Amino acid sequence: MVDMNNYKVLKQIDNPSRMRDMDIKTLRELCQDIRNYMVDVISEVGGHFGGGLGTVELTVALHKAFKTPDDLIVWDTGHQAYPHKIITGRKEQLPTIRQLNGISGFLKRSESEYDTFGAGHASTSISAALGMAVAQKYNNTSNKVVAVIGDGAMTGGMAYEAMNNSGVLRSDLVVVLNDNNMSIAPNVWQLSNYFTQMIAHPDYNKFKGYVWDMTGKLDMFGDRLRKIAGRLESGIKSVVTPGMLFEALGFRYFGPVNGHNLHQLVKLFEQVRELSGPILIHTITQKGKGYAPAESHEQRLHASTPFDKLTGKAFKKSGAPPAYTTIFGNALCDIVEKDKKVVGITAAMPDGTGLNILLEKHPKNYIDVGIAEEHAVTFAAGLATQGITPVVAIYSTFIQRAFDQIIHDVALQKLHAVFILDRAGLVGADGPTHHGTFDLGFLRMIPGMVIMAPKDEAELRNMVYTAVYYKQGPVAVRYPRGSALGVEMKEEFEMYPIGKGELIQNGEEVAILAVGSMVDYAEKALSLLKEQGINAGLYNMRFVKPLDSDILDQVASNYAKIVTLEENSIVGGFGSAVAEYLMDKGLKNDLLRIGLPDHFVDHGTQAELHELLKIDPKGITERVAEFLKKHRAEN
Amino acid sequence: MVDMNNYKVLKQIDNPSRMRDMDIKTLRELCQDIRNYMVDVISEVGGHFGGGLGTVELTVALHKAFKTPDDLIVWDTGHQAYPHKIITGRKEQLPTIRQLNGISGFLKRSESEYDTFGAGHASTSISAALGMAVAQKYNNTSNKVVAVIGDGAMTGGMAYEAMNNSGVLRSDLVVVLNDNNMSIAPNVWQLSNYFTQMIAHPDYNKFKGYVWDMTGKLDMFGDRLRKIAGRLESGIKSVVTPGMLFEALGFRYFGPVNGHNLHQLVKLFEQVRELSGPILIHTITQKGKGYAPAESHEQRLHASTPFDKLTGKAFKKSGAPPAYTTIFGNALCDIVEKDKKVVGITAAMPDGTGLNILLEKHPKNYIDVGIAEEHAVTFAAGLATQGITPVVAIYSTFIQRAFDQIIHDVALQKLHAVFILDRAGLVGADGPTHHGTFDLGFLRMIPGMVIMAPKDEAELRNMVYTAVYYKQGPVAVRYPRGSALGVEMKEEFEMYPIGKGELIQNGEEVAILAVGSMVDYAEKALSLLKEQGINAGLYNMRFVKPLDSDILDQVASNYAKIVTLEENSIVGGFGSAVAEYLMDKGLKNDLLRIGLPDHFVDHGTQAELHELLKIDPKGITERVAEFLKKHRAEN
Repeated sequence: MVDMNNYKVLKQIDNPSRMRDMDIKTLRELCQDIRNYMVDVISEVGGHFGGGLGTVELTVALHKAFKTPDDLIVWDTGHQAYPHKIITGRKEQLPTIRQLNGISGFLKRSESEYDTFGAGHASTSISAALGMAVAQKYNNTSNKVVAVIGDGAMTGGMAYEAMNNSGVLRSDLVVVLNDNNMSIAPNVWQLSNYFTQMIAHPDYNKFKGYVWDMTGKLDMFGDRLRKIAGRLESGIKSVVTPGMLFEALGFRYFGPVNGHNLHQLVKLFEQVRELSGPILIHTITQKGKGYAPAESHEQRLHASTPFDKLTGKAFKKSGAPPAYTTIFGNALCDIVEKDKKVVGITAAMPDGTGLNILLEKHPKNYIDVGIAEEHAVTFAAGLATQGITPVVAIYSTFIQRAFDQIIHDVALQKLHAVFILDRAGLVGADGPTHHGTFDLGFLRMIPGMVIMAPKDEAELRNMVYTAVYYKQGPVAVRYPRGSALGVEMKEEFEMYPIGKGELIQNGEEVAILAVGSMVDYAEKALSLLKEQGINAGLYNMRFVKPLDSDILDQVASNYAKIVTLEENSIVGGFGSAVAEYLMDKGLKNDLLRIGLPDHFVDHGTQAELHELLKIDPKGITERVAEFLKKHRAEN
Repeated sequence: MVDMNNYKVLKQIDNPSRMRDMDIKTLRELCQDIRNYMVDVISEVGGHFGGGLGTVELTVALHKAFKTPDDLIVWDTGHQAYPHKIITGRKEQLPTIRQLNGISGFLKRSESEYDTFGAGHASTSISAALGMAVAQKYNNTSNKVVAVIGDGAMTGGMAYEAMNNSGVLRSDLVVVLNDNNMSIAPNVWQLSNYFTQMIAHPDYNKFKGYVWDMTGKLDMFGDRLRKIAGRLESGIKSVVTPGMLFEALGFRYFGPVNGHNLHQLVKLFEQVRELSGPILIHTITQKGKGYAPAESHEQRLHASTPFDKLTGKAFKKSGAPPAYTTIFGNALCDIVEKDKKVVGITAAMPDGTGLNILLEKHPKNYIDVGIAEEHAVTFAAGLATQGITPVVAIYSTFIQRAFDQIIHDVALQKLHAVFILDRAGLVGADGPTHHGTFDLGFLRMIPGMVIMAPKDEAELRNMVYTAVYYKQGPVAVRYPRGSALGVEMKEEFEMYPIGKGELIQNGEEVAILAVGSMVDYAEKALSLLKEQGINAGLYNMRFVKPLDSDILDQVASNYAKIVTLEENSIVGGFGSAVAEYLMDKGLKNDLLRIGLPDHFVDHGTQAELHELLKIDPKGITERVAEFLKKHRAEN
């Protein structure tokens, strides 16, 4: 257990107002306290870590200069907001973060008035902040609004749409670009101090005007300038670049500034708070700042399980089977090994999707498009028109961003693109923004779509292969977050017949039709049911679209009762497809649809959530038994 | 009928290769022929018109300089592509455009090898083109790829995602920005010739480098420059601006160029074809160019019904009832009149959505966010957090773009935002890219969503009001394209109870549960059924979510057979919701689900398509009668 007395300044902070009386020196101590506290707590309980270490000074400076909660801070994607949570009344709860009934790992409006807008998906902050800024006008208020967005999120189209719209609407809005991996402007850091001073200077705008103006008349005195220009460092160009982009979109640009220089940040924010119109502040921060193991290993500590505080090394799990993610990555590598017309596409998540394996072994067949799911899908469609097979690996929850592109750019044109949806179903600690609970429903309504879900890693491997060589149109494979089952794998690929499931066990009275991750649970439920004297049949459907009508007809005629089982919302999902089928054919079987409920599900471990929602083996058993009893009583 | 002999040069063009031998003078005559032909044909048959008149020279120059169909031209949104269709083998079919079994009003891969990528939704071209450009590498080919995108589409986030990714991937890709209303760079046109020459000059890149370089050392000789700069026209700044944006994203920028100067365009395209890396050519064109009535009235002739060739005036329809679009616009105005905390939001479609009425009467409560549906929704969420009620008016087909934002930014946070989905169901001539056939399904799966559909204009008016004052969370109203029914309207608003439908007629044996546009058809079908001795009951459901369980229970107990009727895909839609309900409750009624089939529907008039798909009154009657007969035979 962590003792709050170890953090002398932080101990005094229950909300940001107390902080506003403190001098810079004390605030620097506060920053150190926050950093120590984060390392102490997160090393024990796990959590997103690197991002928050990088925003300690930024957070303190923002809450010092802006009058929160009246002034509104919108954090893009909550990872970076741990320090914000700590100084806005939730420091005592930090040890519960991402745990069942604990505080969320992301911003959450219902958790605190300081959490102005929740976000687990990237690139939303500027849109939301602009809405808040525009609302001031209708409310006759003048609270300030600040969006804090990472450089990665800045590659998302929404951020650009919002910037462009901000430039037009001219509302008072401050965007802080938290640039921590320099993806926008490589090598910008070395020259930042010089340029910060120059650009923040009150004469800067005038100065810049002169430069533009000169372009028109350069030939009048071009020779002399050319000589001088020739001697200048070419590096300067790249420094001007990020500013150019934002100025073109109508923002006043300040930066780059050192995002760990508390004094400078506070001063800048205080000045900027008094300015009007859209303003962009470009801060350079270091992910994992102040904690050596995190600094040197940014990617791994982006999200972290509990780890050794001194070395930063994660405590080893006992030999769990490989993750589905890894199985997919390896399967795709094996395919690409023999077929160079297959290309893996990620939207800035090589590690999360398993495409890091492809990147390592076949870098030429790996493409990272940035946080840009919409583009990823239509880009894939473009590749497909030329006979290349794109394999687009995007989490279930994030592919929602590209719903229209799958319909309009892929399916309507019958293009063959493969969609690999990791994290389908309940994802656990990341909670409601990240659960992948809708994909079976929204993909199923797309004409010509093929949807598969593997029961184990051996099937996943074959489904990846089947999807790549299906060739007739769009095809998706969805599977859960986490470890596979540990079944035996064959190197040889098997092509599955499209729309065909498999019988796992014959039974009496009731048949369970299970999809993907639920097949394993169903098998366990079968044993439990057996103990109650119920011999249920079980089918592994493999395909949610097209449905296996042979299995359905057979089951409908052999069993009075049918249970559908899926890790997806029961509204419009697989069970709904079976209900449609039975109704359309006039089949009068009793149907129990087990799946995720029609409400958003909070965070917790996957096992806890499954139990809570009664879709674990025990819950399934109970519900099936009750279903049988009820109908027996009725009939 | 139009006689092809009137177009001397065009007559000879069956595909672009013939055109490549022609000199500029002849090609200019070709341009004039294309223009005349378009005016002659489209005035008779109707169609998108202004955009195409603006791209005549651009189209001829592209096909002259690039070796199509091996080189690939990707048109963003097909409106601008009529000249392309005319010179790629489809001139004889132009009179059939947008008609049942005629050619499509948009690009269509199955229609021509010159149509490399279909697009009815905006901002997709650069993504698709980049995919094609990258594919060259895997195919060991080196065909050139050109995307042609309007300035409006350039505000879409996908375009930015694709530009950004192009800058990183460095593939050979030409983007032609067809700038026809100067939304990116106001007043750019006046200075274009001067800058075009300067910028296209081979020394331009060097020259530009000097300017950047000078920023670092300006203070060394600042005084003299300041004096000169002071005398320069401020207009020059705005000219440099668009280039800045694209250069920052990694493109070489050429422009602005006069998009009607054929000679200049051909020369530039021929030069650019030999360059590598991402290139952006900024052309300025005039919508409706060369046809006086279109030039002076751009917005109205964007899409057109048949019109008088000399005056440009549309042939009047006989007094049809007002469009649903207008009813919505007026209803919202009446609400805003009394409540200034209600704000209408459009994604660049004021006229199409009816928000032009709000713009005229209450401009302060009207916001156009550009072609940016994702941003529109999250921006609305931001407004909602501050107690403002955003009314987001977006066509059903385009709201697909914001599916994730509705889930993640609005519904998950239980924010009250109103979604007005015009063009729900089959839209007619615009065809499969524009049909709004999925919304009931994909909205229904979102927890807490309320979905309404009015049976007529009086209900629409009340539903807009009900949605605005519901206040509990996200709510959508969906209605079809076209004229309302002409029923009597009350000025007074009525608040509907959430989740309650209405009985229209009691019947025997079978009850029809109809949604929105289908209620009217159902009433007509009822009469036709009556003639066959069938007394069907009818309910107007009003709400698809929450379902009216009172009606469902009542109907299930009073009628053996139930028919659901919706202008939405039957996969996952309203009928599916009813199937779920009946199955979950163990109700054994027979169910016939009438709706749109699980395949993409081509273009044609709405009436033709309804008939074809048997969801017109006659088709509904047949299917209901057959359903009764079949089940009578079985039972």
